Parts: sequence; C-alpha cells; structure tokens
Amino acid sequence: MRSVIDDYFLLHSKSALKLFNEHAANIPIIDYHNHLNPQEIAEDKQYENMTEVWLNGDHYKWRTMRAMGYSEELVTGRRNVTAVDSFIDDEELDYRRFLAFADTVQNMVGNPIYYWTHLELKRYFDIDEALTPDTADYIWDKCNAMLQKKEFSAQGLLRKQNVQVLCTTDDPVDDLVWHKKIAQDVDDISVRPSFRPGNVLGIESEGFNAYIEKLAEVSGVSITDVDSLLAALEKRLDYFVSNGCRVSDHSLECDFFRDTDVASVNQIFKKRLSETGDTSITLDEAAAFRGYILVELGKMYAERELAMQLHIGALRNNSDRMFKLLGADTGFDSIADFNYMPQLAKLLNAMDLEDQLPRTILYYLNPKDAMAMATLAGCFQGNNKGIKGKIQFGSAWWFNDHKYGIEQQMQILSDSGMISTFIGMLTDSRSFLSFPRHEYFRRILCDRIGTLLENNEYPYDMTFLGDMIENICFNNAKDYFGFD
Amino acid sequence: MRSVIDDYFLLHSKSALKLFNEHAANIPIIDYHNHLNPQEIAEDKQYENMTEVWLNGDHYKWRTMRAMGYSEELVTGRRNVTAVDSFIDDEELDYRRFLAFADTVQNMVGNPIYYWTHLELKRYFDIDEALTPDTADYIWDKCNAMLQKKEFSAQGLLRKQNVQVLCTTDDPVDDLVWHKKIAQDVDDISVRPSFRPGNVLGIESEGFNAYIEKLAEVSGVSITDVDSLLAALEKRLDYFVSNGCRVSDHSLECDFFRDTDVASVNQIFKKRLSETGDTSITLDEAAAFRGYILVELGKMYAERELAMQLHIGALRNNSDRMFKLLGADTGFDSIADFNYMPQLAKLLNAMDLEDQLPRTILYYLNPKDAMAMATLAGCFQGNNKGIKGKIQFGSAWWFNDHKYGIEQQMQILSDSGMISTFIGMLTDSRSFLSFPRHEYFRRILCDRIGTLLENNEYPYDMTFLGDMIENICFNNAKDYFGFD
Amino acid sequence: MRSVIDDYFLLHSKSALKLFNEHAANIPIIDYHNHLNPQEIAEDKQYENMTEVWLNGDHYKWRTMRAMGYSEELVTGRRNVTAVDSFIDDEELDYRRFLAFADTVQNMVGNPIYYWTHLELKRYFDIDEALTPDTADYIWDKCNAMLQKKEFSAQGLLRKQNVQVLCTTDDPVDDLVWHKKIAQDVDDISVRPSFRPGNVLGIESEGFNAYIEKLAEVSGVSITDVDSLLAALEKRLDYFVSNGCRVSDHSLECDFFRDTDVASVNQIFKKRLSETGDTSITLDEAAAFRGYILVELGKMYAERELAMQLHIGALRNNSDRMFKLLGADTGFDSIADFNYMPQLAKLLNAMDLEDQLPRTILYYLNPKDAMAMATLAGCFQGNNKGIKGKIQFGSAWWFNDHKYGIEQQMQILSDSGMISTFIGMLTDSRSFLSFPRHEYFRRILCDRIGTLLENNEYPYDMTFLGDMIENICFNNAKDYFGFD
Repeated sequence: MRSVIDDYFLLHSKSALKLFNEHAANIPIIDYHNHLNPQEIAEDKQYENMTEVWLNGDHYKWRTMRAMGYSEELVTGRRNVTAVDSFIDDEELDYRRFLAFADTVQNMVGNPIYYWTHLELKRYFDIDEALTPDTADYIWDKCNAMLQKKEFSAQGLLRKQNVQVLCTTDDPVDDLVWHKKIAQDVDDISVRPSFRPGNVLGIESEGFNAYIEKLAEVSGVSITDVDSLLAALEKRLDYFVSNGCRVSDHSLECDFFRDTDVASVNQIFKKRLSETGDTSITLDEAAAFRGYILVELGKMYAERELAMQLHIGALRNNSDRMFKLLGADTGFDSIADFNYMPQLAKLLNAMDLEDQLPRTILYYLNPKDAMAMATLAGCFQGNNKGIKGKIQFGSAWWFNDHKYGIEQQMQILSDSGMISTFIGMLTDSRSFLSFPRHEYFRRILCDRIGTLLENNEYPYDMTFLGDMIENICFNNAKDYFGFD
Repeated sequence: MRSVIDDYFLLHSKSALKLFNEHAANIPIIDYHNHLNPQEIAEDKQYENMTEVWLNGDHYKWRTMRAMGYSEELVTGRRNVTAVDSFIDDEELDYRRFLAFADTVQNMVGNPIYYWTHLELKRYFDIDEALTPDTADYIWDKCNAMLQKKEFSAQGLLRKQNVQVLCTTDDPVDDLVWHKKIAQDVDDISVRPSFRPGNVLGIESEGFNAYIEKLAEVSGVSITDVDSLLAALEKRLDYFVSNGCRVSDHSLECDFFRDTDVASVNQIFKKRLSETGDTSITLDEAAAFRGYILVELGKMYAERELAMQLHIGALRNNSDRMFKLLGADTGFDSIADFNYMPQLAKLLNAMDLEDQLPRTILYYLNPKDAMAMATLAGCFQGNNKGIKGKIQFGSAWWFNDHKYGIEQQMQILSDSGMISTFIGMLTDSRSFLSFPRHEYFRRILCDRIGTLLENNEYPYDMTFLGDMIENICFNNAKDYFGFD
Repeated sequence: MRSVIDDYFLLHSKSALKLFNEHAANIPIIDYHNHLNPQEIAEDKQYENMTEVWLNGDHYKWRTMRAMGYSEELVTGRRNVTAVDSFIDDEELDYRRFLAFADTVQNMVGNPIYYWTHLELKRYFDIDEALTPDTADYIWDKCNAMLQKKEFSAQGLLRKQNVQVLCTTDDPVDDLVWHKKIAQDVDDISVRPSFRPGNVLGIESEGFNAYIEKLAEVSGVSITDVDSLLAALEKRLDYFVSNGCRVSDHSLECDFFRDTDVASVNQIFKKRLSETGDTSITLDEAAAFRGYILVELGKMYAERELAMQLHIGALRNNSDRMFKLLGADTGFDSIADFNYMPQLAKLLNAMDLEDQLPRTILYYLNPKDAMAMATLAGCFQGNNKGIKGKIQFGSAWWFNDHKYGIEQQMQILSDSGMISTFIGMLTDSRSFLSFPRHEYFRRILCDRIGTLLENNEYPYDMTFLGDMIENICFNNAKDYFGFD
C-alpha cells in the first residue's frame, strides 16, 4: 500500500527531491513562535489518548467538525450544550470524538488539516493509512498504545522532531517558573519565553485596569502614568530577557497608531485608570495609546536586540453565544479587513526616526494586505549592522498556513524582496504534535526552488541553493534572533 | 476538424476525465439562483433568431462588444443613440449585431464568454466550429433554423440540459402567477420563486415609499412602522413558501449593519415615510435599518428552514449617461471595494445570538474579500441539526464566474473549510442558453480533484471522490434546500 | 555553458516559442511611459562605468541591497551616512558598489531584478554568465570597456533595443528644450513629452503656492482662481501637444474626488493661495479640488484626443529619516491600501456625462484593487469613434512588474475584458538599460497564449494570434495614442 504521505509528497521534480533530502529533511527545528504550554514541557506530560493530545484545544480541527454538522459535545467535548448523547461517559466520549474526527478528516479534501493529520500519523506513529471511519479503530488503538510510552511524553514528542529552540508566548506578568524549571532540567531543548504585552495594548478591554494593577504588583512599580507604565514593562522585559527571551509578540486587530504626544497619551491612560466619571475610550484614543506604547516598546526591543513580531488583522470572538459557552480561542475567529498601511508605515517610521527600529517581523492575516505589507517592509531594511532581512515579511500565518498560502507568501517575498534572507516557518500551534508543519513548509519551499531550476529560472547552483534552503530552515532564524 | 469544445476540454488528467464522465457529465442540474423570466417558461416561448435568444438582455456580451468599439445600436440594438446605421431595418440589425458579436468573440481570447459561447453552440446546436466572422453566416443560418423547432422553446432548452430545479428571483409583491401556471402545466421541471426583498432594504432609494405602499396593498397589511412592515413581509414570505420558495436573496452594496434597536429603526422608517420635513436618510441610518430588517428576515427564514443568500459588493449604474439611456442591468456595473467584515460578523451574530441564524450562502464580488468571508463562514457552522456546511462560502459570482475565479473560490473553500459540503454552481443568468455553465464548472471541479490525485495529495479513492463530485453537483444542494 | 538567459527563457511550449520568435522578438518598442532624462538623450550621454549607468538612480536595486544589510555608502554611494568606508575614493567606491550588487543579485532568487539584470547583461553586453561575486570582476571589466564605445551612448542604447517611440514624464512648466533638440537632431527615435500636472493636484503640499506662481509665469496667465488656473494649464497643454505630447500622467495617492461645484473649489483654491489666516486644506477639500481639476483636464485631453494615465495607490516617502538624507524616489515608497472605487467611478462618470471622457489608462498598485478596477474600466468602454479598449486596464506597474504580477494583470484582463485590445508594456524606468523589460513582458505574454493553445483553450489559429501578439506589442499602442 502506498502511504498517504510518501517520500515524494509535495515534491514534483528531481531537484526538489534532492534539495529536500539533502538540505531540509534532517535540519533541526527552531520554532520561534508557538502557544505551547511550558508547564506540560516542564512536567514532561504523558497523554491519555489521541483525543486528549490531538483534539483538545485544537480549534482548527473544531471548526472542521462543526462544518460537518457534529454536535458541540463531539467537537469540543463540552457537555450540556445540547441534550444529545449527554449520557455517555468520558472514555466513550473521547472515542466517539475521535470517530467524528475520522469522518471529518476524510471529507477535508485539499484542506491543510488533511495533510497535517497524516504527516503527524506518519512521523510520530508510523501510520501509512488514511484516517477514515474504516481505519479509525485500528489507528485509535495503535496510537493510544504508543502514547503510553515514555518517548511520547511532551519532551519526547519534541525530541522526535528534532526541536532545538522553541519560543512560547507569555504575558509580561508571568513568573516564568516553568521556563526556569525547563532550563534547569532539560539540556537539549532551549525553551524560551516571548514577551507578549497584549493586555497592556488593549486599553479598551474590560479587564484593563485589573491587569495594570497586576502588572504594578509583579513589577514592583507603582503605575500612575505612561512613564511608570513603561518603567514597569521595562522591568518585566529585562526579567524575560534574563530568562532567555529574544522575541516579543503583538496582535493588532484594529487601529493602532495616531500622531500624538506623551501628554495626550497620559490623559487617555489616566482617564482609563480613574474609574470615576466617563472612562470610555474611543477608537482614536485607543489607537493613540497603543501606538505610543508600541513605539516605546520597540525602542526597548531595539536596545536589547530583540525581535518584534506584529500579527495584524484578526477579527475575534465573532459568536457571542459561543464565546459565553466556550471562551476565546475556540474556533470563532476570522480575518479582519481594515486598511492599516498608513498606520503601519507611521508606526515603523516613529521608531526609525531615531534609528531605534528593532528587527521586526510583519505578519498579515488578510491576503489582501500581503503585497502592501511586503513593499512596506522593503522601506525599512537599511541598517548599519549588516542585519540581513531586518524587516521580515513573515511566514504564512494561521488561516494562510496551507500550501497555497505558503506559496503566496514566498511568491510575494520573492517578487518584492529577498527570499534568501527569510527566517522561515513557525507552528503558532497549541499542539505538541504539530511540528511536522515544518516539514510541510520545507517541502513546499524545496518544491518551489526545484521548479525554478526545472524552468531554468535560476542557474543549477546546488551549493548556493542548498545553503539557502538550510539558511531558511534554520540558520537565518538562529542569526536573526541571536540564538546561541 | 477538432471541435473548439472537445471531450477533454478543461480536463488535464485521466482521473479528471474519469470523474467528469462517470460522476458529473450526466448529473441533472439544480439551478438555485438565476434571473430567468418565469413568463417565458410558462408560455414556453419560441425564439426568432440567435440575436434574440443570445444577445438581447445579456449585458455580459454587451460589455465585450463595447470594448471592441461597436456602436450602441449594434451592441444593444438601441436606436438613435448615435445616427450611425439608423436606416437599417430590424431584421438586418439582428444580423449585423450577430456579425459584430462574431467578430468580438474571436477577440475574447481567454475570456469565459469565449467558452460559454462555444459550449452553447456545441451543446444546443451541435456546432464544432469557432465563431468568427468567417463562420458567422453558416452558424447564423444553422442555429436560426434549429430555433424554429419546438424542442428549442424555453422549456425545451431547459430539458436539453436536464434542468430539474430552477429558482427564479422575485420581488415580494410579485403575484407568482407564472410560477403557478408552470406548477400546473409542467411536470418535469420544478420552477420555484426566490424571495428578494431588495426594494425594502433600499430605504434611501427614490421609489422606496411608493414600494412600501405597493407592499401594503399586496399584503393587505397597513404599514406604519417596522412591526407592520415585518408583518407584511412575513405574509408575503409565507405566500412565496406556499408556492415552492426555498431560498431568499439579498444584494448588499454598501453598509448594512449598525448596532441599533427597534425604537431607532422605527424613527428612521417613519421619517422616511413621512414625506414632510427632512426625510433624507444618512448612510448610518440606512445601514441600521437594513441590518435590523435583515436580522428579522433571517429569523423568519430560519423558522421556515429557508436559505438566505447574501450577494455582497456590487457597485451599480456607474455611468449616469447610459443609465438614462438604457436603465439598470445593461453592463455598467462593477465591483465595489468597501470593507464589511465587522458588519457581516455582527449581522450573522445577531441572528445566531438566539440560535436563529438560517442556512446562509455568502457571495463575495470583490476577490479581496474572499478569504475573510470564508473564514467568517467558518465561525457559524455549528448547529444541532446536523446540517453540513450550514454557512456556505458561495460559488464564484458574476465577474468571478470564469476558470480562474472558480478555481480561486474552490481553493479558498478547500484551504479554509470543507469542499465536500459545497452546494455547487448556479447560473445567475438571464439567458435560457446559459446552462452549459454548469458543465464548465463541473469540468473545472473534476480537473481540480483529478490534479489532487495526480499529485498524490489524496488517496485514489474513486468511490468517495466520485460521490463527493455528485454531491457537489447535485445532492448537496438538494439536501441543503430541502428540495423534494 | 548554458546562458542564464537562453532562447527558451520563460517559454514553456512550442507554440509559445513560435509566437515569440515570429511575432514578438523583432518588433520595435513603443515605450509610452518612463522617467528617462531627455537631457541625456539630447546630449547623447556616454557612461563611465556600470555603477553609473546601472546603480545610480535605480531605487529598485537599492532596496534589495539594503535588504542584504549593505551600508548606504555602498547602496547609493551617499557618503557620511555612516563613518564606514568613508576613506575610499570615488572609483574604488563605484567598484565596491558593483561588487555589493553582484553579491546581492545572486541572492535575489526569483526576484524580477535577477532576470532584468541578466537580460540586460545578455542583450547589451553579450554576457552569458550569472552575475556573482566570482564573475563580478570579469563582468565589470568587460562591460566598462564596452561602455566606452560610441554605440553605448544614451541614444545608442535605445537603438540597440529598437526603441521607436519613447514618452518621458514632464512637468507642465517644463520648457521642453531637450525634446526640441532631440526632435531636431534625431530622426529614428521619437522622444515625446508627457503632461504630468502632479504639482497642481497636490494642493496640500508645501510648495504648492510657489509652484502656482511658477506656472503663472511660464504660461503668462495670471492665476487668481480656478478658471485662470485651468486657462494656464490649457496653454501649457497646447505647448506640450505642439511638441509631440500624446499622453498625460497623474499619480493619485489619496482621496481624489468629491461631489462639488466650481464655487466651492474656487473657495478652496483661494484659501490656499491667500497665505493669510487659516490656509490649511482638509482631505475633503483637497479631494474636491483634485477631482474638479482632473475632470476639467480630462475634458481637455478628450478634446485633443490625448490619453489620460491614472496611476493609483502609492504610499510615498515612508521613512522621514531617509527622506531627509536622500529625498524622494530613493526606495522608501510602498503600496497604499485606501479604497477608491466609488471615487474612481464618479471621476470617470463626471467626464463621461458630457461624453468627454478621454482614452484612459488605469493602473493599480495594490493588487487588491485589480479586479474592481478592471470591471470599472469595462463600464466606460462605449464610444462612437470605434476606439478599441478605450479604457485600458493598464500593464503591471512598479511593484507588480514581475512574472507573477504581469500574469495576474493579463489574467484579470482576459477574465473581465479583451486582451486583444491591450496596449501592452512600458518600462516606467529611470534607466537607459531597462528596455529588455519589454522582452521579459513579451515572453510572458507569448507563453500565456502558448499555454492556451497547448491546453486547447483556443483554436490553433496562428495567424490571428500572431497578429494579436504584434498588436499588443506595438500596433495597439500606436493606434491608441495616434503615433504617426
């Protein structure tokens, strides 16, 4: 029987095959952005069954199961959303959910989850068969048995995929206790925190003031104005850096810059903190605040040679009904469509003005923004430090993380800039089984370069191109972030 | 001589050919959205010549003839726009218009009208030749002779293409007299009305108040506020349902949602009806009104298990000069570019809040909106009725109805959702000869799936994939709309 | 050794090869829009070395070198931006800059500059080798030696590429002295000015009033209101026309139309000129002014049968820091993302109302606008003069000028209109070596048509298609602009 995933998967030329096998297949992984739980790594968690490790927490899969018409109990395991099947016990529910997913996956013709699923079955569990209702029992039993082995622990799963560096996503108030434990206990995997001050930027959010109190407490800085807020953030940033942090992260979901000054921003911030009178924040005020804080953070990153990630354009929690039931990150987000190029240009310019623009990775969620963003990245590449690709046009993100989206991002990067300086893929995932997505990306990358060669659109210089592939898969990220 | 359209047309692999021949070529047609005139079906109209059946009313063709520099008289047959040729008689004009189109079509290299034209010549008239100035006379004579036969009547043309269900587009005030006559007279074609309350949503339009009067008259409900307006609409909707209606339709061309309440909407509506003082309606007011009515309509659709179509993003009647001469739908529309995702999210959410979101089909006109729309559709799939693909990312619409546009829609649907639950194609046409567009779509669909197989991106499971093709071509729509 | 650019470059079928060799390769060039310096043509400038002719002034190349981390001194030759290397002399700096570019170009895998570079090396200097650090010395020496020859003068370089007509881009106040000299001295190349009244449209710009004074002086018209402004422009336009001008050009970078009237526009214009009190101009005012002037200019163009070019969507001078150092057009521009379709529709409609819409070429910079723009173009094609493709969906512009962008523009043009009426490519360039971009375009065009044939998507009518290729490469532009 032919495996769903064979050696030729996504590789359509001899050159592509050669590039992949010799320059990509065995290169270790730097996963510089994901949402893995560091506690599970520190405690080296062992998983009960495939439903726990595969379906719990994976809102990508949940969306597909909902599209097949499955009830919420089978999708998320959430009881009492409807009365259906509520009598079944936990073990039986896990099994039924796996069956529901097996039925779903068979229907996902052409969807990236189809390929991720079978890459994961092949690479971790050596399964060649397609997951269908017919094979579900066999796969359920085989995988569950393997999951009991020590080598299938959280750390074991990372080692199986040769993960060398991994950056989690963490709040500035986090004590990083699990990162410290990992640093003590684990030699071969470098697990680093990322600085994500999203709660600070969301000045219009309900929990903002409570968060600022928490930040004051954790940092030991009394926060009364913008300067003390920045001082608190700087202390936390240094704490993160001392624990291995090399990269920050920010999600920008609506306006994020206005021409403003510190006095205005102070007024906005103090109004919000006051809790008496009108404390409502307009979109303009929120944008001014966000932009000001981002610029100051950017300068801190530049000073410490950290990279700044900007993820732009999610539209979150679209179903109020389901948000009340399941909370955030449960499969009810989509792509926003606001226009933000002038704001983004001004944000970068504000840091660049004093030559304090850090290494920056720009991610679009809406493909309509891709070309504009790529060309804007090209306006801020200049630097006196010899940094290659200082402003990165980031890897295909979230809803774009599929063959077509990855090709589109590389196409635009090639057309408008330098693919040779690209720092490559990340998983952005919550799942310990998701690392074969790097292989998925690398195959597409090698196929792309192989096709150039087949079409005589680049000389047959396998030394140069082989090195380039290795750089994109590993070395560029290592150099860019300064991982030792 | 090789036919312009041969058996291999658009099929580039053995698998594609097999899928098309065994699972698509002979499947009947459900055309769940078009603009055919039910009177012509009821009266079983016979056509004079190719110009009448092909060129009259087809603004797609008119646009291309204008781009070739042809005068309006040859394009639309409209006299006296210019003095040129105004001496020629009707019969001669029909012939000259056909010649002008023959010259035009030869120049439409790569345009979908080229393929539609030759598919129509082949499937209805068994013509293999390319339509050019050289072949125009032969084709004119042959086709006109065939048009005289009974089997080329309006109904005959539908039967030739195996049309089983057909949904026209109708105004709530329509008496559906022709649909009733068809239901009495015709056994083998189910011709159903669709509920399109566009005149109600266009509160800022000139004829709004007159239309509301008409609606009151037809429904027998005195319309004085929003509640009575909704009552009138509900009566008409039930009348439509009792005449076979299973689907509604709405064209959204500018803002269509605001957070509002019934009191505000009543105020807006009453101001508009008052006809004294300032009755002007702002964009915000119109959007609030539209959104409110849409939500209430949506709930009515949900209750009756009807589907709701939202066609979003046309920019209409761009040339005032030509609008005065020719009226609407004459080839002067284009694609709008407003950003509407937050509004669309809130519109769907407003119905979903009380779990009263109906089956919904979202169509984008501007491809820049496609990915965002597809991912938004993915947020509202969940349901307790086992409906597959409850929120449909609709087929390539209007300006996107060509090979590239169809591929793009299917690509995005596959990347972000479930192509297996897709309800497939519709003609959206005003022409009785347009049904081979289903074949055009099916060939592209089969080629796409065939290519997946050739590339080893799905196991060679022809039973599953063959069923899937049949479902997309027919069964999914049948189930989705509840056609019996 | 195989040349980087061989006969098969970008041609993937026999038909493509045949079409290119027989109908495109030897067709002369009409370059109807570029930014060449007419003085260099008039004086028939000779170039020192490859750095002067290739790297000076070419901000496309500068952006790529910055992305490789090269210092500004090596990128632009600008001294004292940093202290690095500031001791080196001019000759050595030229050489080092060439080496830096050689290193850069090797890294530009898939970027259009890679292909332009090697096409230029092949066509002008007969160099087959890839430019790399290893071959840089050989290429530097060989090319520099050739540049000393008379046939490598500015005019010589144009003749080598068979340039027949060339339209530079000029300000209305320009005296066109160099165009006059060229007209006297040069027989075989028609060098024409284009009318680009950008300084008039930029009412919110700092230098606006000074510019209006200059325009008054040059035109001999005292400018006190909109009417006298238009009179001055009309005088300059007639002067341009009498010097061979057939085409105008306008860059629209933010809002450019409002419904307005002459009284309002007069008020705005007079406020701006007054220089006392509040002279600030809002975006709405600027847009109203711009729209009004554009409409009046359009009518002047229509009357004289000139073409109007609208380049829409640049976001310029994003880095204030670098703008201060290097000025405009130095590689710090990107793609804007404002939505402008309703404005563009109204602008065209305003001219069309009185049937005074001139031949118009619409260029998008942001691909998100492409489909909407193409369909809008299709709304204004009608005319009584038999003009084919009166409203052109313009060639891939600037950041879109690469294989994918060119294919995308032709795809959309084919899908929504008539590729056979397309007036083809232009360089938009500041470099005398850039004319092989026409070959680049022609190969992509021929490959596209060849692929249609290979796929049986058009009958094998090489006479018709060969003519079409020649028309797109040359005849359509000649007819459209009325070049004699």
